[in-house]
Amino acid sequence: MTQTIARSILLAARPKGWPTADDFRVSDTQLPAPAPGEVLLQSLWLSLDPYMRGRMAAGASYAPGVEIGQPLPCEAVARVLHSADPGFKPGDIVVVHDFWRDHMLRRAGDLRQLDPALGPVQTALGVLGMPGLTAYTGLKHIGQPKAGETLVVAAASGAVGALVGQMAKLGGARVVGLAGGPDKCAYVTEALGFDACIDRNAPDMASQLAAACPKGIDVYFELVGGTVWQAVLPLLNPFARVPVCGTIATYNDVVPPPGPDLSAVLMRTVLVKSLVLRGFIVSEFAADAPEFRRQMAQWLASGAIRYREDVSHGLDQMIPAFLGMLGGKNFGKTLIHLAD
Amino acid sequence: MTQTIARSILLAARPKGWPTADDFRVSDTQLPAPAPGEVLLQSLWLSLDPYMRGRMAAGASYAPGVEIGQPLPCEAVARVLHSADPGFKPGDIVVVHDFWRDHMLRRAGDLRQLDPALGPVQTALGVLGMPGLTAYTGLKHIGQPKAGETLVVAAASGAVGALVGQMAKLGGARVVGLAGGPDKCAYVTEALGFDACIDRNAPDMASQLAAACPKGIDVYFELVGGTVWQAVLPLLNPFARVPVCGTIATYNDVVPPPGPDLSAVLMRTVLVKSLVLRGFIVSEFAADAPEFRRQMAQWLASGAIRYREDVSHGLDQMIPAFLGMLGGKNFGKTLIHLAD
Repeated sequence: MTQTIARSILLAARPKGWPTADDFRVSDTQLPAPAPGEVLLQSLWLSLDPYMRGRMAAGASYAPGVEIGQPLPCEAVARVLHSADPGFKPGDIVVVHDFWRDHMLRRAGDLRQLDPALGPVQTALGVLGMPGLTAYTGLKHIGQPKAGETLVVAAASGAVGALVGQMAKLGGARVVGLAGGPDKCAYVTEALGFDACIDRNAPDMASQLAAACPKGIDVYFELVGGTVWQAVLPLLNPFARVPVCGTIATYNDVVPPPGPDLSAVLMRTVLVKSLVLRGFIVSEFAADAPEFRRQMAQWLASGAIRYREDVSHGLDQMIPAFLGMLGGKNFGKTLIHLAD
Repeated sequence: MTQTIARSILLAARPKGWPTADDFRVSDTQLPAPAPGEVLLQSLWLSLDPYMRGRMAAGASYAPGVEIGQPLPCEAVARVLHSADPGFKPGDIVVVHDFWRDHMLRRAGDLRQLDPALGPVQTALGVLGMPGLTAYTGLKHIGQPKAGETLVVAAASGAVGALVGQMAKLGGARVVGLAGGPDKCAYVTEALGFDACIDRNAPDMASQLAAACPKGIDVYFELVGGTVWQAVLPLLNPFARVPVCGTIATYNDVVPPPGPDLSAVLMRTVLVKSLVLRGFIVSEFAADAPEFRRQMAQWLASGAIRYREDVSHGLDQMIPAFLGMLGGKNFGKTLIHLAD
């Protein structure tokens, strides 16, 4: 076999505030031939997700921070080039939790086989993958919207938010989204079927949200934090549930925002409204993945759930696409396409 | 029968910040003889609890605010003077959700009969009453401390905190309290058996707390808010549970404290540690009251649970005792004794 060079993007420095190109560097590594039980793979699609910003910090996030000089993590869909394991053969398509790189050598046990006949393989990174499972389990275990209740989700055209709202609609909830700008809002109401969608940048966002939720808010699926959360808090009903899945609006804050300190108001509201705030990461509910994939495959087949992808091409688009996503410039699930 | 005058304390004005004597006024009302189904009662003991501060505000708290000119609510232990209901006879002792007053005319269905042979009747306002049920159900449904876990509670010598810690100890948890000053701290460790108790006013309170919780904090039973909560937050372990039962440190805040705004840090911590914050009021778990009273009676009989009362005498001590409690000057369950 020929030698394989893996090009990786490494963390060069811990970003202070917004990441810049200087915080990353490219590294080429020659991969050896697979040893027994190993598989050599070519990345076809890489996933970009907001949680990665947290992994660039030194402090404890979901998981330890990435060390300086180490590659950044992501989910990948990859094709088997060479296999030294009886479970895989060249041409097989797999999904794997890997890194920002175009080739990899992995243990066979780390790979999950995909059936390309079931649909576009990159959906294993989005609607049928981690973002989909996040939406599904956050609703199932924490949000639990009932028919007739009102659910609010921001980043409503994004990978997780779009699915949260559509699933809640399927369960009979009134669903109100927030998204950045009129194009995304139109997509959220017209294509995804939300009852309303509010431009999160509108100066009267808070009063628009109140008007769109005349019976208050029973579930707020928290993906963004910041001004949206401040607008949601007074509208929450007694016993409202808040799955806390992300706070992307604050990921690049270097210091806490200026005062007043609203944390006491927040705790007082939790108290007097008997709220549930529950942080979670999808790995906690990994056991639900088979059930989720069966259910989502049915929804996709029937057209009950729709999705949208924001695709950039080539490893050198990884960093611009990541920064764009942190700034809300993506429109749909952010993906990097490396090869067919 | 002779005429009965009920002396009540009414809300005269909505307190701005700390309540003052001018926010209250006394009113005497002549009570008629009981109509069929009614009972005339004399208050023996009245309970003072921090939640009452919230009811003095106009904004929505647990329940609508008390109207100006109306009496303030409290739990009471009372003696039947005259009964026009076959279920009660003069001399019976009852517990009733009533008001700051020394006599009352109530429907028989509002009263719960007490057996004075079981112990001091005023325990129906404390260890066997609402504060006890609050501690019991907050632990049972939300805190759920396991053997070997670490629980922290502030106001640890108070009506709820003392019981929270002792119950968690009975379940095998390590229990760390905070209380105001060395006398209360000595009582909490020596009489109540907490593993440690930290003076909440110590300048190095946060580092003392960290040292007392070498394995982090798994349950924080929130009664006080403010600086204690800020010290607890970084010590919470993944999947820690925070029953939010009160935030007495902030009840008299007129405006939010100055910045920085720590609410984003709070939400980020909820996220990355998969925390549960759950506000509750005891009425939500009223169905647990019979089970709770059986269990607590056993604990009291065996000496497993101890309690302390802070008793003032006479209706004219109601307001000073209430203000003292808000300032942490009480030492044990705050009670007003009106008659034997």
